[in-house]
This record gives sequence, structure tokens and C-alpha cells, in this order.
Amino acid sequence: MPRAPAPRRLRAHIWEEPQLSPHPLDALLRPASIAIVGASDDPVRIGGRPLAYLQARGFAGRILPVNPNRATVQGLPAFPDVASLPEVPEAAIIAIPGEGAVEAVRELAARGCRAGIVFTAGFAEVDAAGAAMQDRLVAAAREGGMRLVGPNCLGLFNAALGYFPIFSASFENGWPVAGRVGIVSQSGAFGTHLFAAARDRGIGTPVLVTTGNEADLQVADIIAWMAASEEVEVIAAYAEGIRDGARFVAALEAARRARKPVALMKVGRSALGEAAARSHTASIAGDDRVVDAVLAEFGVHRARTTEELLDIAYVAQKRIYPARNTLGVVTISGGVGVLIADAAEAAGLAMPEMPQHAQAALKALVPFAAPRNPVDCTAQAFNDLSVAGRFAESMAADGGYASLIGFFTQWGASPSIAPRLRAELKAVLDRHRDRLFVMSILAPVERVREWEADGFLVMEDPSRAVVALAAMGRFGEAFVRDPAPAVAIAPVALPATAPNEAEAKRLLAAAGIAAVPEEGCATADDALAAARRIGFPVVAKLLSPDILHKSEIGGVLLGLADEEALRAGFATLLDRAARRAPGARVDGVLVARQVTGAVEMVVGVIRDPVFGPVAMVGLGGVFVEVFRDVAFARCPLDEAAAERLVRSLRGFPLLDGARGRPRADIAALCRALAALSRFAVAAGPRLASAEVNPLLVLPEGQGAFAADAVLELACAEPAA
Amino acid sequence: MPRAPAPRRLRAHIWEEPQLSPHPLDALLRPASIAIVGASDDPVRIGGRPLAYLQARGFAGRILPVNPNRATVQGLPAFPDVASLPEVPEAAIIAIPGEGAVEAVRELAARGCRAGIVFTAGFAEVDAAGAAMQDRLVAAAREGGMRLVGPNCLGLFNAALGYFPIFSASFENGWPVAGRVGIVSQSGAFGTHLFAAARDRGIGTPVLVTTGNEADLQVADIIAWMAASEEVEVIAAYAEGIRDGARFVAALEAARRARKPVALMKVGRSALGEAAARSHTASIAGDDRVVDAVLAEFGVHRARTTEELLDIAYVAQKRIYPARNTLGVVTISGGVGVLIADAAEAAGLAMPEMPQHAQAALKALVPFAAPRNPVDCTAQAFNDLSVAGRFAESMAADGGYASLIGFFTQWGASPSIAPRLRAELKAVLDRHRDRLFVMSILAPVERVREWEADGFLVMEDPSRAVVALAAMGRFGEAFVRDPAPAVAIAPVALPATAPNEAEAKRLLAAAGIAAVPEEGCATADDALAAARRIGFPVVAKLLSPDILHKSEIGGVLLGLADEEALRAGFATLLDRAARRAPGARVDGVLVARQVTGAVEMVVGVIRDPVFGPVAMVGLGGVFVEVFRDVAFARCPLDEAAAERLVRSLRGFPLLDGARGRPRADIAALCRALAALSRFAVAAGPRLASAEVNPLLVLPEGQGAFAADAVLELACAEPAA
Repeated sequence: MPRAPAPRRLRAHIWEEPQLSPHPLDALLRPASIAIVGASDDPVRIGGRPLAYLQARGFAGRILPVNPNRATVQGLPAFPDVASLPEVPEAAIIAIPGEGAVEAVRELAARGCRAGIVFTAGFAEVDAAGAAMQDRLVAAAREGGMRLVGPNCLGLFNAALGYFPIFSASFENGWPVAGRVGIVSQSGAFGTHLFAAARDRGIGTPVLVTTGNEADLQVADIIAWMAASEEVEVIAAYAEGIRDGARFVAALEAARRARKPVALMKVGRSALGEAAARSHTASIAGDDRVVDAVLAEFGVHRARTTEELLDIAYVAQKRIYPARNTLGVVTISGGVGVLIADAAEAAGLAMPEMPQHAQAALKALVPFAAPRNPVDCTAQAFNDLSVAGRFAESMAADGGYASLIGFFTQWGASPSIAPRLRAELKAVLDRHRDRLFVMSILAPVERVREWEADGFLVMEDPSRAVVALAAMGRFGEAFVRDPAPAVAIAPVALPATAPNEAEAKRLLAAAGIAAVPEEGCATADDALAAARRIGFPVVAKLLSPDILHKSEIGGVLLGLADEEALRAGFATLLDRAARRAPGARVDGVLVARQVTGAVEMVVGVIRDPVFGPVAMVGLGGVFVEVFRDVAFARCPLDEAAAERLVRSLRGFPLLDGARGRPRADIAALCRALAALSRFAVAAGPRLASAEVNPLLVLPEGQGAFAADAVLELACAEPAA
Repeated sequence: MPRAPAPRRLRAHIWEEPQLSPHPLDALLRPASIAIVGASDDPVRIGGRPLAYLQARGFAGRILPVNPNRATVQGLPAFPDVASLPEVPEAAIIAIPGEGAVEAVRELAARGCRAGIVFTAGFAEVDAAGAAMQDRLVAAAREGGMRLVGPNCLGLFNAALGYFPIFSASFENGWPVAGRVGIVSQSGAFGTHLFAAARDRGIGTPVLVTTGNEADLQVADIIAWMAASEEVEVIAAYAEGIRDGARFVAALEAARRARKPVALMKVGRSALGEAAARSHTASIAGDDRVVDAVLAEFGVHRARTTEELLDIAYVAQKRIYPARNTLGVVTISGGVGVLIADAAEAAGLAMPEMPQHAQAALKALVPFAAPRNPVDCTAQAFNDLSVAGRFAESMAADGGYASLIGFFTQWGASPSIAPRLRAELKAVLDRHRDRLFVMSILAPVERVREWEADGFLVMEDPSRAVVALAAMGRFGEAFVRDPAPAVAIAPVALPATAPNEAEAKRLLAAAGIAAVPEEGCATADDALAAARRIGFPVVAKLLSPDILHKSEIGGVLLGLADEEALRAGFATLLDRAARRAPGARVDGVLVARQVTGAVEMVVGVIRDPVFGPVAMVGLGGVFVEVFRDVAFARCPLDEAAAERLVRSLRGFPLLDGARGRPRADIAALCRALAALSRFAVAAGPRLASAEVNPLLVLPEGQGAFAADAVLELACAEPAA
């Protein structure tokens, strides 16, 4: 199959080039020919716009309009039906209603067409009948190995090829400009909004794909294609829901390995909400923090607003992703320097102080300067613009900051100042081309373009610059991170029905999560021997299958400090059973270590319907329930990942010796969390959730023990 | 004194007009004449720019250049010194260096000049000598009753009068446009940045004042003037520090009463940081949350970024401040509707559902529409734009939303769509002129201006629109709030030296904060009688002035359940004292109620160096220390304000019966907090801090009791 020529590279790369090879979706995104089923002669109708655009933009492949009523469409020879097409189109637009669309796809697939772009609406987005028709559409495509975007999508473009199978009216206001930011959006309205906003900011978008109903191809598939593509270096994505966790995760990992940053906007609540009723742990989660956890795992930036998404795409175009990001600020306003420092702290972007010798040198240059960082070069720079250059040079060379912000407000556009200021700062940038240098200036677009041509980024609002620069650092951290090593986890057999507490604890103990030491004892002598093994003080509980609520009949004795107390307690418990629960079978007494001085934690696993088992950890009781201080990550976790999760808790100081407490056995907590996460993988999809609540974490070196455990199974296997 | 003519009003008012009268600062901001001491013939020098601007903008007052070396300056007759001026200027610019500036101010003040604008730098911002010179500058002005802005300021303008005593170069890029947003900024660079950014967005700024070193006039004074002025309806302010809390608070209250919204950017940490070392409570506070509390009290919006400040100013220009704000969203993208709903939830802006009958009507109109709110009118509107109008009308009329966002992205600029869409929606807006209607569209500035001319607000990013609209509601809530009634609080006499725990508890008990019931008892019989009054179980503690750490010698007995246990305990305590602390004086035993089932709270008061006594409340222990779940408000608080504060805690559910707990006596907690806040006012500035930690809040109806209390005094009075 002939490949359309790949567009020329636009700029030198800092990162090593990923290995590229023909991709299965190239037929969709770089076809040599395209049919338009439902081609219209009217260039503003849905079936007419793509044809007009393909011709206007000089698409080099064959264009094959299908229209039963016309010999030509917009000047091209038309064919009455798919069967009459003189060649097999590599791709096809389907822009005819209802079952006709299904039939067209079936015929195209049968002839060997590889990719369909289905504009037609009225499928699963409407009702059950539409959903059934959508199923037939996908089945028709699959029969012939054809892939689909849509239905109910707006289409896509690959600008360098003049390939515009799309019916958006966006191009009335301008075509895409050259650049490397790929856009993929479930929503056509939002995708074209993003494209147009990017264009208006001068951000080039070589490829846009809208996925509509996602009957076949999903946002994840397009991300994966972009990760391997030559056209795209930065990926901006919009998703309303994520249906296939495995495809999504694989796509994000492909992008990470290709060192292509992904900024994603994901609105609404995750599928986790559905699971809320089924699991206590899930009800703790409540919102879409699982999505947050997955995105964090791959270094994806979750944008909260459209502007943030565009800001990040804008800055990411530089392809400088510092794994050790630091921010230096040179400003002509001390107050704005503080504003930027406030924003950097909120964004987690470090602003280390300038070296002492450099501070002294700047002070010598401008006695009233504030040289720490932010570096205030004061109005002195107004009189002598070389001061701004020398200050910036010192920040780059001596401060070594990976990211720089220069706050020069209207100076950036002032006819009397801007040209000299630009020359001074460009000399600095030319010596430090590995830095991200944002000029925070107030300037009309023509002036902005001059700064940009010199290699600067320009962002009027310094607070937004801080957020975008911080994101570049997190991309860099993700890119240098080693992928988690694959761990072989042997399956674990779960019981046929939901295990009781003791069975659950046994299963978890086998998986490496020790329960509080305890032994069932038939006689007082057994109890004494057990207590000697376990260590005093102990707790003693009646052991009876018939007494469910032991404490109500006084069947639990706490704080038995020595052998004498235990022997007396044993007798007391049996006596109470005889008097208060006559007829109950009594198997003896459970003797357990009485744990004191522990920090109570909750560790658990929920099965997210999209992403599979997800581990959670939080401080027990009100910290989880009221403060929602819980952290999530996909299973399995190794101990290092478990520790990162534990340290992310706001309440972590409570484990770490805050306010004179003993430091808790954090290592044991992390081992238990990692073990639980492996257990969840080993147990497979029948495990609906697992929760150890509380996990008693003793002082450092003394371990962590499950005091209670609940395992929920998705469904019981039929009894034998 | 002749008043400059007031500018004509620009639009009809929804709010009642505040009563205006001549203001003491009118001489500064609307003078009939101005001297320029240090006037330069060079129109780009500091002493030349204001003169050039005043002439260029047609200032109607007399302009009196002072320059010893020239007969004319920029074409106007010049005078060699202040003494030679042919009349007393109402205001004067001082643009000469060092002591000359002090002398000029002295002479001007002596002649009766009312207001000085001191550009001169080199004062307190530099060093101690500069600070001393600044003191002389202020003293010189005060001698003659002259007010000053600066020194080290950039100047100010009142655009309608052509009054531009300012040396900013901002005007190279354009003069202020007509409008009602006043700007006051400590920082000249930031103030002019804000002005220029506003101008570039079409936001009119009639007045800008930069206050520099604030040797005399502060940001607060300018806010107060703007609150009373005709020129300004919306106040945008920037402050780096607030020095005079009383002036600041009075200014905010004046603006609130005048129904003029204030949006303020305050960077950096508050003066509270300084107090951190002095008080435990203060160290809990740490950052500038006291400022947040004060701003919230007056409904001031604290902007985090420059853009947010401008967004709020932009929307506030409509002067629609709905005290009961609700948001309705009409969109052509369901996904963006969800995005907006997410943002509204984060901003605390309610999005109630459309009434059922209206939803049914919209469904009848467009079967596939989503009519709840956000209302998705779908691509159907593309074919029939009257749908957009009918949907918007239903949202305004049936939904009754005070705020509306229409997300129409590129439709807002499309030549084929925009004019018809605008006509449809303008008809809706014309019927509902009391609504805030933001169009979220992607359009060049010419198109934006057309929408704005029709009465719409236009903001490209809907998330930013949500933040600004939410602010309008909070302004409205503040405007309708009754000011807290003045409470007469009789002074309380504090002891000469810091009181011990018992004295502190007595003082607080007198103020209405009961301590845990306790009685000192000399004999066992006394103890039994006391315990009968207090109620069992009780705690017994040795009472001895010589034993400081009672628990170390076993001098505290908990959980004494009955008379027998108390009698035995009394003997035990005296025995331990005799054996373990021989020679210590023993006064007897303190018998106290043993409190169980209480929620431990911290209530306190710190004396903020700027704002005076500030009350704080938080959940005790780790909730305050690790989670920093603390709320602040200025003293005094009434019970209702105390309850608002308590309810603002993240941990409030712990008081409110979360997870099956008994509901705590919230009313008693609020009474104690209000009482403590009144006590702090009554005690006056000698009280450095007060802290009740813990305050034990019992279940509903059972009260709240101080278990420990510490009062710190600022300084001890000399012993008698």
C-alpha cells in the first residue's frame, strides 16, 4: 500500500527519536485514497464540506465521491454506490443516515476498505434501537477488518497531507498553522473549539481526531497512534469517559516511552461512582480520584480548564522536559515576584535561592536589587537595560534554573525599550537553549511573535506560566522513570463463598499481611501457653459459633496483664457463656495480643470497573471518613510505590513522629500495602474488594497487624 | 474651592446611589490646580511625562511648573521655586531628589497646598537614613495639613479630568478607555500593568492610584475615597502588606455599604508570621489566613491571579450582584456543560435543575436535548437557531437563574451563524436585563465588541466565567448583610502578671466559659460532698503549690466511680505525697468531673498585629496540628458568627453526629467561642493570646467545658 509522504520535521529534537514503523491506523490518518459516501455538491453541507476541504487543501490522494443522483460532485466524477467504485478506497467517510450507513460500511469492509469515518448520528447516543444499530455497524466493519471512528463524530484532519475528512465550520476562520500539537477529543464541539483556540494562539495542530460515540476506536487508540506518529510531538486530549482501562493505560505508557507529553481534560465523574454502593472502600473514594491516580502514574497532566490545556501545549512545544525542574524569576516588580513565588509553591515548583557569590555580584551591580530569587532588578534596568541581561545571565548560569520567568510587563511592547531588552535577553537564551524561558509581558500579538521568533515563550499572566512550567517538570520526571518491573504473581484460589473474618485473615496472612497474633484455646492451660508465646498483655474473647455479639454478654476481656488475670478471665468468660448464653456451643477462648500505641490505618483494594484492582491507603477512622485523606494507585504496587502513596497522605506526619509521637513502622505498613495489592492481582476479578480496617501499625521495628479484614467476592461460584 | 465637573454617569444603576459629599482627598484626585516641582522640558523624563500628559489630555485646571533653570517648560511659564508660585496649588507633584523633596513639601504645605504626589525614591525602601528622611517628609506635610501619596510612587490619574500626574510609560500604548473600574496599587509596576491589561481588554479605568511607600496615604484610604466617589463603581486593589487594620477595615465597610465590590490581590505572608514565635495559636495559623478572614467578612474577593482580578472587574462592571446567585448553562457541547458544572461546584455556585415542566417543553422542542442544567441544545440549534433562543429564554424565565453562561464556541464568530444567534439571544437578554449573561465564544475582538454592545459579557474560557460569576454572588451576599450590631463590651481587668491555669479558668468562667466542674477539698469528707455535687465518676488530683508535675508522683487518679473509690483515693494521694514528695505543702485534693464522650476542640484568640484580636476554632490535637483545620474571624463574634465559623471546619461532621456519634453540644461550643471573643475585646491589647485547649464539648444539651486554659499577656505591669 502506498504511504503518503510523511511531513518534514519542523525543528531539531532534544529527545531521541522513537522508532517508527507503519501503524495499523495509518489507513485512517494517512490514506492514499478516500471515498465520501453521501458526498454533496453543496460545500457547506455535512457531505459537502469534507470534499471542499480536501480539494482546497490539495489532498494528494484519490477522492471518490459516492452519490446515486449526480454524475459529478463539486467537479469530481461521482459513483452511484460503493460497488461501482473503480478502486478500493483506503479510507471512507460515511455521511448518509441510518441503516444506509450500516450497509455502506458492510460493502466498504467487504471490498477491503480499511478505515471508516462515520459522521452519521442517531446511534447509541439516542436510544436502545440506536445502540443496536451501532452494534450492527461495528459488526459490519469487523467482518472485513475495517476500523471506525464515530459514529456521531465530526471527523478528523491531518493538515500536512491536506487530509480534511471533517465537517466542522472552524476553517471559516482559518486553517491549522504548522506545529506539533495533536488533538484528540471525544467531543467534536470541544475538539474543534480547542483547535480553533490553539490556532488563534499560534499553536500548530497537525492532527485533530474527534471520536464521537467510540463504537470502535477510542481516544486511547488515537493517543497510541500519536505516540508512534511523526506528525505529533505533544498530545492534547479530551475525554468524557474512559471505557477500556487496559487500552488507555497502554496508550499512556506508549506516549511516556516516546517522551511525548499528554495533557488531558477529563470531565465529570468516573465509573467509580457506580461502584460506590457496592463497597465501603469505594464509597470512600466517591469521585474520580482513581483516574487521577492512573494519570499521575504515567505523568499525564490533567488540565482543569481549556486555557490550562492550551498553556501546557504551548510550552510543551519546546520539547524541554526537565526531570529536575527549578524556577528562577527575574522581575521589575518585587510584588509580582512574591506573587509568582506564591504560585510556584502552590504548583510544587521549587524556587531555590541563588548562590551566595552570585547574589553578592548582583548586589555589587545594583545595590538595591533583591538577588535571592525572585530576583528584583528594580527600575535600575529601566536606565540600563544591560542590567536585565546580566541578571538573567546570572540566573541561568549561576542559578542553573531549568525554567525562567521574566516579568517585564509593558516593557515587552514599549517601542523604546522592547528591542533593546529583547537583544539583551536573547543573548542569554542563545547561551542556554536548554532552558524554558517565559517572558511575562503585556504586548500585542505582533510584538509577541517577535519574542517567540527569538525562542522565548510569552505568557501574559505569570501565574499561568508557573502552572505550565511545573507541568514540564512532571513530564520530565515521568519520562526518566523506569517502568515498574513486571512481577510474576501466581494466582490465589478464593473460597467458593465470601470468607468470614478468620478465613479472610488466613488468606491475607498467607499473602504476607499478618493479623494480630492470636490463638484459639480450649483450656485455661492452653490459653496460658498461648499468651506466653504471644506476650502479655492479652485480650481474651469467647470462641463460639453461636454467640455473634460477644461483647453484649461480656464475652470480651481487655488488658489481661499476667497469667493470674488470664486464668481468672478464662473462668469468667466460660461462666458468662453458661449463664448468659445457655445452650451455645463454646469452643474455648481466643487469646490475642493486646496492641497499644499503634496508628490505625485502613488499607484496601477496590476493583475499579475500568482500571481493575486499585489499592487505597488512609489513616483510619475519621481521617478517611470525614477528611477523605485517602490515596489510590493501580495494583500491583511494589514497596517503593507503596511508600510514595503513604507519604502522599496529608496525615503522614502522624506516622512519622509528629508532635513527639513514636515513629510508626512505615516499612511494615508499606509491605502490607504492597502485599495486599499483589494479593488483589493474584485473586483476579472475582475479588470485588478487600479491606483491612484497621491495620494496626506499631512503632518502628514492631510491625503492622491486621485487626479486622473483609474480602468481598463479585459472585459466589456454584456450590459443588 | 471650585470642584472639577464630575464625569457624566455611564449607565443606569440597579443599586441605590450612595450619598456623596466632598471628600478630603478630592484635592489629591480632582484638584483645580497642580504644581510640578522638578518639571522637565523633556516629555519622556520623570518630571516631564506628567506635564506632557496633563497637556495632551486637556487638564482644565492650572498647571504650574517649578524649575529654577527655565522660564518655560514644555511651553508653559515656569517658576523658579515654590515661593514664587502665583497661586497656591491645590495639589503638587514632587519630582526632585532627596532633601529637596522634603523642603518642597514643607514649603508647599506651609503655603496651603493640600495634596502631594511624591515620585522621589530613596526613602524607607532603601535604608534607615531613608526611613528617617521619610519621617521628616511626612512631618513636613502634616505641619500644613497636606496629604501625600508616595514617596517612591509612580503617581495617579483621574482620566475624565485629563488629570495625569504620573510618569508611567503605559500610555505609549493607549489611554484609559471609559469605564468605572478604579485601580489602587501599592506597586507602581503592578498598578500600571493592571491598567494596561484592563485597557487592552476594553475595561475602563477612570482612576488609578499607586501608593508606593505609603508614608501617609495607604491603599485603604484610596479604597475609602473610591467608595464615596462618583468616578468609581468597582474597586480593583493590590497590596503587599496591610499596616493599619482599622483603616483597612473601615474602608472595606465603606465600600460594602456603598455596594461597590472590591477585588483585591494581596501577595506574600501577613504580619501574622511575625507573631508565630510568640503564641502557640499563632504558630498554628502560620500564614495569612487572618487576612482571608477579614476579606471574607466584608465580601471582598481575594484574587489569586491578575487574570482573575481582571475577570472580576470585567463582570462587575454590569453592577448586577445577585445575593441569591444561581447558574444556568446553555451549551452546544454536553461535555463542556459537565466541565462548567465541575467548575461551578468547585466555586460554590449553585446550578439548580430546570423545573420539570420546562424540561418537558424543551424535550418536546428538541427530543434529544438534555434539559436539566446544563441544558444541551445539541447540534439541532445549528439547523434552527431559534432553538438556542427558545432554550435560553426558558432558562431565564422558567429556570430563573441569576447568572447564565452560553457556550457557543466558534458560532459566536461564524459569519453565517453569529448574527442570527446574537439576534436570538439579545431578544432574551432584553427581556431579562437583571441577569448576568456570559457568552463563552471564540471570536476576534471586533466580534466580541458586537456581543458586548448588545449587553453580553464575553469570556472565552467558561471556567473563568464561573469564577467571576460566583464572585458576583458573594458580593451580593455581602451587600445585603446587616452590619454586625455594635456590642458594648465592658473592660475586664487582667492580673498584673500572667495568670496560672486556675486563675485563667476563673477569668474565663467569669466571661462565660465554664471550666470542667472541680472543687478543692481539704478533707476526704469535703471531697465526698464535692463529688456528690459534681457527679461521679470523678478525677482526683493532689493540690499542692510545691508539686508541679503531679502525674510523675502518681498524684492524679482517674475514673473514681463511687464514694468508696474516692475515699480510698484521697488516702492514696496523701500517702503518695508524704512518701514521694516529703516536705511539700499539701492543701488537699482537687475533685473534678471526669468528662467522657466529649469532642476535644481548641478555641483561642490571638492578637494580630494588624487586625487586633482574632478568634480561632479547630478540632483538637492532630486535626489542628497536622491537618491545620482551623478557622479564623475578627473579634468580637456573636453566636451566629461563631456558628458559621464552626461550620466552616472540614471536621465539622465530627461535631454533627458523623458515623453514628452523638451530636455534640454545638450551641455550647459557639457560646464559648463568642464569649472568648468578647473577653478578648474586653481585655484589650494587654492580652497577647488566649487559648482553651481542650474545650471539651459534650453531647447535645450537656455543655462545653474548658479543661485547660492559657492566657498570655503582652507585658507585665510593674509590681505594686
